[in-house]
Amino acid sequence: MSVTDTPEAADAAMIEAARARLAGHIRRTPLLSSPFLDEIAGRRVLVKAECLQHTGSFKARGAWSAVSALAPEVRARGVIAYSSGNHAQGVAHAARAHGVSAVIVMPADAPRFKIETTRALGAEVVLYDRANFESREEIGGRIAAERGLTLIKPYDDPLVIAGQGTAGLEIAEQAAEAGVAEADVVVCAGGGGLSAGIALALEARAPGLRVRTAEPAGYDDWARSLVSGRRERNATEAGGFCDAILTPEPGALTFPILARRAGPGLVVTDDEVRQAMALAFTRLKIAAEPGGAVALAAALFRPEEIAGEAVIATVTGGNADPALFAEVLTQAAG
Amino acid sequence: MSVTDTPEAADAAMIEAARARLAGHIRRTPLLSSPFLDEIAGRRVLVKAECLQHTGSFKARGAWSAVSALAPEVRARGVIAYSSGNHAQGVAHAARAHGVSAVIVMPADAPRFKIETTRALGAEVVLYDRANFESREEIGGRIAAERGLTLIKPYDDPLVIAGQGTAGLEIAEQAAEAGVAEADVVVCAGGGGLSAGIALALEARAPGLRVRTAEPAGYDDWARSLVSGRRERNATEAGGFCDAILTPEPGALTFPILARRAGPGLVVTDDEVRQAMALAFTRLKIAAEPGGAVALAAALFRPEEIAGEAVIATVTGGNADPALFAEVLTQAAG
Repeated sequence: MSVTDTPEAADAAMIEAARARLAGHIRRTPLLSSPFLDEIAGRRVLVKAECLQHTGSFKARGAWSAVSALAPEVRARGVIAYSSGNHAQGVAHAARAHGVSAVIVMPADAPRFKIETTRALGAEVVLYDRANFESREEIGGRIAAERGLTLIKPYDDPLVIAGQGTAGLEIAEQAAEAGVAEADVVVCAGGGGLSAGIALALEARAPGLRVRTAEPAGYDDWARSLVSGRRERNATEAGGFCDAILTPEPGALTFPILARRAGPGLVVTDDEVRQAMALAFTRLKIAAEPGGAVALAAALFRPEEIAGEAVIATVTGGNADPALFAEVLTQAAG
Repeated sequence: MSVTDTPEAADAAMIEAARARLAGHIRRTPLLSSPFLDEIAGRRVLVKAECLQHTGSFKARGAWSAVSALAPEVRARGVIAYSSGNHAQGVAHAARAHGVSAVIVMPADAPRFKIETTRALGAEVVLYDRANFESREEIGGRIAAERGLTLIKPYDDPLVIAGQGTAGLEIAEQAAEAGVAEADVVVCAGGGGLSAGIALALEARAPGLRVRTAEPAGYDDWARSLVSGRRERNATEAGGFCDAILTPEPGALTFPILARRAGPGLVVTDDEVRQAMALAFTRLKIAAEPGGAVALAAALFRPEEIAGEAVIATVTGGNADPALFAEVLTQAAG
């Protein structure tokens, strides 16, 4: 599939409309900083702390955008989603707030903390085996058809992309408040919903800011796809440290947006991600999960691949298993 | 000393003036929440996350307020402070930003993380022995006189109280945005600078909100003083888990304010503080240090001593030693 065959998944007007639906339900998360991070990166580092969003990740934005846009009689029949955990919580949260039921299809090897929290938010959780490449799309589609539920996709949905894009509107405003007009905006990329939404928002509101995808080594489908110009697959999506952003390939709707707007993809090691998690804790006082710390790791440890006097990095989620986080902190302190 | 003999340490006008000096230098920290915390407390819980403030605690407010108010020729000679770590960082940060030197007198048993960070912020650190009740006031006063430095006291200074009070202005506004007009505002209390500043701000801007001090058992000088009507001392200030808020007794300027405006003091156990630290991490995605989690512990685990449908709790600092925090998380996960 060539880039030009795919229509735009969302646009600035859809993002503004999503922002209006999200008002009062979604937090304007802070843009944090620390002189100690600036020193490591060799430039000013501004961190968009989406781990402080409701449900602990930016996914609450897209989920709210999609669920709130459904016709009431459609929404009343319930929604379904497939997710490794953060989109799950976002959809469960939005469904409960709208008074409708939610079924969530999750990989059986998702962090226990995420599975439990999704259940605690009132959702019915259906587990599947990610290691065997069983398709969550097929499972989700089947249950949706059987029960008359509306499928809320994790990223290849214009309403979801528009919802994630509201984070981009905030970044545009907060960067201006911080006096930053030109910078790379490094975003943790799985399916690319947040990266694409932010790219569209920045294109409209802060054209001097450029999205850069960040991924863990071994799961660098975005970096390879942005080079080749077509959607490249990962060898596997099972077993990685950065569970939140391990998707098979870039999204069909998100890829053309980023092919047009993003700079080259950034790739970091799991050890760099662990260091970024520890630094986010000690220097910014926030909890970053592995997949949520990838962009900060790139901002801190790939300075030579980044342009400009400042860099903006998203910390996209904070739903880390406490035991895992304790291990990361102990390692960093030792 | 009777309550009426002591003049007010600060007033609403001083807090507004401090806010003007702090503008652009101090963050408006978010008011966070989680349905899981509401469930534990049995009421709505709103958390003022001052751990996300510059330097990782509210102390940056008071320090900036005091340092920024000095006459330039006085400030140029440098400042000095005594602190277990958070006021130290606040003063070091404010001094560096104003281009002047800072000497910080710290207890030798302060967390290593806080001592190192204070040094990294450019301050000269002088250690003293807290276990022997060596007076930090005497040490600080002596060095200040010798070198011509201005002493920035941690709480018994009207400019510092006014600076901390800016957090109270934000709480008043954010509570109104959240639809909360009447509630207890639980504040971690050491010398009482933050509690007193918030109390003054709420008196002027949100009279339906009432300050409640929170302290760890064994160091409950505020709770006992608010009962007896005079400043009661702690048996010791050494060795406690909640290092940030272990002061010998309520401040001379802060006590009369809270004697007039605060409800009864709340007291929690160290184990409850550990649970609150873990819950702040898992549910709000923030790092709370022991002394910074005391108020959240009281909000969660003393529901029968709190009035109203909502409670506001300050998380005042996040400068926890990573190894200690890892231990707390491991214990909570086990």
